[in-house]
Amino acid sequence: MDKPYVLGLDMGGTNSVLGIVDAKGNVLARTSIKTQQYTDIHDYVKALYDAAMPIVAPMGGLDRFVGIGAGAPNGNYYTGNIEFAPNLPWKGVVPFAQLMSEQFGIPCTITNDANAAAMGEMMYGAARGMKNFIMITLGTGVGSGIVIDGKMVYGHDGFAGELGHTKIDRSEHARLCGCGQKGCLEAYASATGVARSAKEIVSATDEPTVLRELNIDEITSYDVYKAAEAGDMVAKRIFDYTGTLLGQKLADFVAFSAPEAIVLFGGLTKSGHWIMDPVVKALNENVLPIWKNKVKVLFSDLKEADAAVLGASALAWE
Amino acid sequence: MDKPYVLGLDMGGTNSVLGIVDAKGNVLARTSIKTQQYTDIHDYVKALYDAAMPIVAPMGGLDRFVGIGAGAPNGNYYTGNIEFAPNLPWKGVVPFAQLMSEQFGIPCTITNDANAAAMGEMMYGAARGMKNFIMITLGTGVGSGIVIDGKMVYGHDGFAGELGHTKIDRSEHARLCGCGQKGCLEAYASATGVARSAKEIVSATDEPTVLRELNIDEITSYDVYKAAEAGDMVAKRIFDYTGTLLGQKLADFVAFSAPEAIVLFGGLTKSGHWIMDPVVKALNENVLPIWKNKVKVLFSDLKEADAAVLGASALAWE
Repeated sequence: MDKPYVLGLDMGGTNSVLGIVDAKGNVLARTSIKTQQYTDIHDYVKALYDAAMPIVAPMGGLDRFVGIGAGAPNGNYYTGNIEFAPNLPWKGVVPFAQLMSEQFGIPCTITNDANAAAMGEMMYGAARGMKNFIMITLGTGVGSGIVIDGKMVYGHDGFAGELGHTKIDRSEHARLCGCGQKGCLEAYASATGVARSAKEIVSATDEPTVLRELNIDEITSYDVYKAAEAGDMVAKRIFDYTGTLLGQKLADFVAFSAPEAIVLFGGLTKSGHWIMDPVVKALNENVLPIWKNKVKVLFSDLKEADAAVLGASALAWE
Repeated sequence: MDKPYVLGLDMGGTNSVLGIVDAKGNVLARTSIKTQQYTDIHDYVKALYDAAMPIVAPMGGLDRFVGIGAGAPNGNYYTGNIEFAPNLPWKGVVPFAQLMSEQFGIPCTITNDANAAAMGEMMYGAARGMKNFIMITLGTGVGSGIVIDGKMVYGHDGFAGELGHTKIDRSEHARLCGCGQKGCLEAYASATGVARSAKEIVSATDEPTVLRELNIDEITSYDVYKAAEAGDMVAKRIFDYTGTLLGQKLADFVAFSAPEAIVLFGGLTKSGHWIMDPVVKALNENVLPIWKNKVKVLFSDLKEADAAVLGASALAWE
């Protein structure tokens, strides 16, 4: 039977979104369940199946689906397991791909969420046609997906591409990261990192800034963006600080895999040129002459609601 | 005709060594010329040919050779060109692979010297059988060759793997690197970097050390090694300093490609456990828990005289 569809699953700590995707990257239908509602992984998988059926049936049933691709925190492409994901209700090692393919009766392939986003970008987004690029997701954390020679890099154990946990500060003042280490890129270039920088920079200056009128413990990267747009100099400095640190570190990544482009994705990219300009400047100031002004820095051009589902679905076509 | 041999060329700034290699990685014969003696690249290629003939003829002539593999500073695998190599007599872009195959009448493939060493390590050395590893060459400079999924990483432009020019110090006190940037790994973890550290550390202390009896501008990494072997505490501190910086940076590389092993190669590895111990310690202190004590750090087990020729020759079999 002709199989024109795949299922793409974007598993987040809060919502799990399942979409039906065709070979051209159209998300034809979607449904979702609440991830945290299922403390037993078997219940979760069954709930996904029950939610999927009403949108799968009108397409001709699961026989018309090549398979399922899933992006999940700490999802391991090699083993099909979700391993020790801090923000999911299931502890330890969960054989997720196996449980899914047993429940749905079609193959299931998984990877981590940042790799899924990179796959989506390569097949349908800003990296279409590129064989060498690095995707950096700037959200609650900093994730990454690395594509070399047209292939996702999984490494020896399936965990390659943890660029959010490379170090940008080795001093004693380095920020503590959620992973337990100090000075990780994630502690500075994530949305949370921007909020921490805002708190530090606003506290350290007497300059007038609209950010001072907010509760300093609740400033978000979006507040900083709005302030920058309104001409606030302190807000601009927060983006300069963040973008410079990120750009410096991207220069290290360029020295590793010499990508054609670096694609930025996620909440922080909504800050547009405020974050892009210092990133590009610092990148070009920190690469060897052969790469100066040669490596493109792009924002993802996938709709954020679709990107993760699309990226995950791309796995199922492999 | 049966073609059981390849030629491997290790082009250095001083000597160019050409070897005849069989499929098992035996270097059956070798010859060399002085690189700097030929200011015209055509003369250099002709001199290589003239030097090769006396060892090629007894093997049955060039008809019995699959091709030539060459490792050259700034050699580009994609283009076959040597591009702007600072330590070679030929300026600008030199179409080296093309000139060689025209002169010898067999295909020639080139790459940079560190990539060639990594190829050798994968086919005949410490990384035999590995599909994911990173080779770091610690010599006059710091070079690198990255293998992912069994393939050398060349990147978009052929220049991937310049890990010696990732940054370990972004402060104003960072050392100037030969590339013109400040704070590059190469300025600290090369043999030259160790000599600079020796000078700094010996000057900054009153502690007794045999290194003080040497001309401080001429201390070599070998002097530091001999002193450490003799129990000199300052010499040990120089290796601790160097190894810690290198190990911290290797942790970043692990987060990138999740290699099975990191292979260290070149002059500095002669310092044995003095350099290895702090490298391993700092690496494991700076990786995510999933990689702690999991990533092997190995010294190359190829004979240094053969490694570069072997590695280069490996290219010709592809």
